[in-house]
Amino acid sequence: MKNTLLKHRSIRKFRSTPIPEETLRELLEAATRASTCGNMQLYSLVVTRDEALRRQLLPCHFGQQMVVEAPCLVTVCADVHRFSMWCRQRDAEPAYDNFAWFVTAAIDALLAAQNLAVAAEDEGLGICFLGTTLYTAGEIARVLELPKGVIPLTAIAMGYPDEKPALTDRLPLEAVVHYEKYNDYTAAEIDELWAEREESELTKRLLAENGLPNLARIFTERRYVREDNLAISRSYFALLRECGFFNQ
Amino acid sequence: MKNTLLKHRSIRKFRSTPIPEETLRELLEAATRASTCGNMQLYSLVVTRDEALRRQLLPCHFGQQMVVEAPCLVTVCADVHRFSMWCRQRDAEPAYDNFAWFVTAAIDALLAAQNLAVAAEDEGLGICFLGTTLYTAGEIARVLELPKGVIPLTAIAMGYPDEKPALTDRLPLEAVVHYEKYNDYTAAEIDELWAEREESELTKRLLAENGLPNLARIFTERRYVREDNLAISRSYFALLRECGFFNQ
Repeated sequence: MKNTLLKHRSIRKFRSTPIPEETLRELLEAATRASTCGNMQLYSLVVTRDEALRRQLLPCHFGQQMVVEAPCLVTVCADVHRFSMWCRQRDAEPAYDNFAWFVTAAIDALLAAQNLAVAAEDEGLGICFLGTTLYTAGEIARVLELPKGVIPLTAIAMGYPDEKPALTDRLPLEAVVHYEKYNDYTAAEIDELWAEREESELTKRLLAENGLPNLARIFTERRYVREDNLAISRSYFALLRECGFFNQ
Repeated sequence: MKNTLLKHRSIRKFRSTPIPEETLRELLEAATRASTCGNMQLYSLVVTRDEALRRQLLPCHFGQQMVVEAPCLVTVCADVHRFSMWCRQRDAEPAYDNFAWFVTAAIDALLAAQNLAVAAEDEGLGICFLGTTLYTAGEIARVLELPKGVIPLTAIAMGYPDEKPALTDRLPLEAVVHYEKYNDYTAAEIDELWAEREESELTKRLLAENGLPNLARIFTERRYVREDNLAISRSYFALLRECGFFNQ
């Protein structure tokens, strides 16, 4: 098991082989065994296998071909709608239309999503999380006909791998782990934590390709640019309000 | 592995046996192998083993004894501080001080957190996620000395189990999984999905104890009450602003 976790790679090229019905069901069962606040299961997993529908979602994911090439796309949503419906049918007044429950439902959803990813990889499948989900969450909600109280957080492309990428590097463990309290970084520590990555061949290639003096500027000037970040923030927060997660 | 996922139970009673250093390190390594947006690892795991400090965190978790009984408490935080520091040291202007990057960092953090939980359980340890983290996130941030750009999302109590609770029930898989698009529920479907739980012995006992006519009202009138939900929403959102995640 530990091996499954340690050897995770994002897969972006998939064979067209479908995932057997029984296998898919087992993976989804494993997802639902994750911890959930008060056993409320405040999430929905929308499993899209229909190719026409995945083709409709393709622009939402900026044309990333795995959306149509992988046989299965799972859109992971925070969902207070189902639980609220149950409450209303029992003369109980639901109060999950607020920010605390957006975060709580998102926690539920993401723990389940990671269980799904781990179960899939343990079964020999490959997965890739699609960060584009946040950028176009409103349009995804429209295509998937999400009711009020349901908001997309991420999506997982899933299928049999058609590539064997190398393991991605990570920062040294000391970068992300703090013992006892948060031990804030000195400038020298930051330099040290990023040193290996900054000196890698991959970084050198990226700098040459982008004509930029360092890796950080590839992030801030090419990959995730301020004006895009702010536009996504505004559109996602507006959707959150529309979905009824900000009545406070 | 599948078994590890399928047999998850939250553990709330722990032996005092410490987690060996090497084991803990392996679990944390497994956490960092989870998917992360652009390989940015926008999270921090604050591992608190010091008993005095855990005792200080106890009221933040409403006195739940596992905070002091389990040998290890991991506070899981969204963290754009470290990455922003690196950017600034490289003359790159970071732009992660906004809502989109709160959600992105939260996704990173929670995928890593679930990897940590799965790795721990696979190793024979028990875990419990502490939802109380959201209620008192500001105070937790103060105790753990979190800098601006770092916000707690959840915490995991971790150690060797001193109880063997039964597996918790879940809603039928059809409750949380939708095929192709979201298939909204009819009232009859909602009744059916909750039927088994509502008829259980546990529910009957809870109704008798609480003097309430149905399970939904235990949620809305006892467990998660509107005025508390709104207070938590306001305090967590205020913290999010203070932490610099809402400059948009």
